[in-house]
Amino acid sequence: MKRVNILLGGPKSEYPDELSKSIKGIPGPWVGADRGSLYLLEQGIIPDIAIGDFDSINKKEQRLLKDNIADFKKFPPEKDDTDSELCLLAAREKYNAQEYYVYGATGGRIDHFLVNLFLPFDPRFLDFYDKLYYKSATNTIRFCKPGRYKIYHENGMKYIAFVNLGPVTHLNIYDAKYKLKDFNAGHPVSWASNEFLNETIDFGFESGIVAIIQSKD
Amino acid sequence: MKRVNILLGGPKSEYPDELSKSIKGIPGPWVGADRGSLYLLEQGIIPDIAIGDFDSINKKEQRLLKDNIADFKKFPPEKDDTDSELCLLAAREKYNAQEYYVYGATGGRIDHFLVNLFLPFDPRFLDFYDKLYYKSATNTIRFCKPGRYKIYHENGMKYIAFVNLGPVTHLNIYDAKYKLKDFNAGHPVSWASNEFLNETIDFGFESGIVAIIQSKD
Repeated sequence: MKRVNILLGGPKSEYPDELSKSIKGIPGPWVGADRGSLYLLEQGIIPDIAIGDFDSINKKEQRLLKDNIADFKKFPPEKDDTDSELCLLAAREKYNAQEYYVYGATGGRIDHFLVNLFLPFDPRFLDFYDKLYYKSATNTIRFCKPGRYKIYHENGMKYIAFVNLGPVTHLNIYDAKYKLKDFNAGHPVSWASNEFLNETIDFGFESGIVAIIQSKD
Repeated sequence: MKRVNILLGGPKSEYPDELSKSIKGIPGPWVGADRGSLYLLEQGIIPDIAIGDFDSINKKEQRLLKDNIADFKKFPPEKDDTDSELCLLAAREKYNAQEYYVYGATGGRIDHFLVNLFLPFDPRFLDFYDKLYYKSATNTIRFCKPGRYKIYHENGMKYIAFVNLGPVTHLNIYDAKYKLKDFNAGHPVSWASNEFLNETIDFGFESGIVAIIQSKD
């Protein structure tokens, strides 16, 4: 399986155009969290899996999901994991895909967004956090394991940021507008508002987890 | 000076009601970043200081700001600091206030938000990061230095999250819906979706920086 799509519970105002205007053009199966599943049905897409505590939708809407979606997993609101975590783990288990496109991961409650941002530190996501792409209207976030990378400029985005989410060693940005040489820290830093000089940027680091955010205003 | 208000460049859709509907009821002087200053003028409020590269507003709008605001600081877009950082440092220098209410710190570009979230690690903010309150439509964020605290339930908010922004030792949540006992980690974790059982929550930690986020859906 190449690509799986996941719709979390973040607000519609954060959806990128591909989701709000041309969702049927997006390849691959869907997994929906909570009222994300309802949005998919409204768009004529039947997700393979629906997961959540569904406390943000009413009984009739829950029945609609249950009647249409083969794999409907309802959890109690008191569960230990967020809907996001449950969704991503279920998608990983079912598909073992090469790419996980995640929509609705941003906006709304910041504590939920930060769970999504920091989940690469959770050992359960170790084998696939570098295959996640969080997509919002103005941002794409991906995560990198230690190594050296060539980053491609995403169509329509103006800025690129490198964010060491926790401790990092030997972080280098070789050929962007703003270079960084052999940076080490024990805490997170958002190296914001960098830009491409060429079609690609070379960067790398020796230990830690780095998020790459391409964005526009 | 008790309270200063700062309006950063985040989108209006993230403004809390007090800002979008009754801004004149907010006590204290204002500092505006970039087009935040323009919004303040439109609302009939003259900020004491306007800071930014102002590349998101046109010449005529810049002239309006310059003619009306005594302290108009224009920086080149290539500067090392974000508008947020410059604004907060200028407010600190001018007022040395007890509380800095910061609006427009969330939404839009995530790399900018993360600069705001991680700035307590920057030594220039060490003496006042625990006096910052980031306010959005559905979230209030504040930062704590090591110690033991009694947190008060903010009117209208449902959830509370404790987020160790980097390494933390002996993090304890004593009397919330979900307790936490003597947690230690070298990386950030968002302890999301906690709730008040009483009017206050006792919590504490020995080293690190913890953000407290009160939120609603």
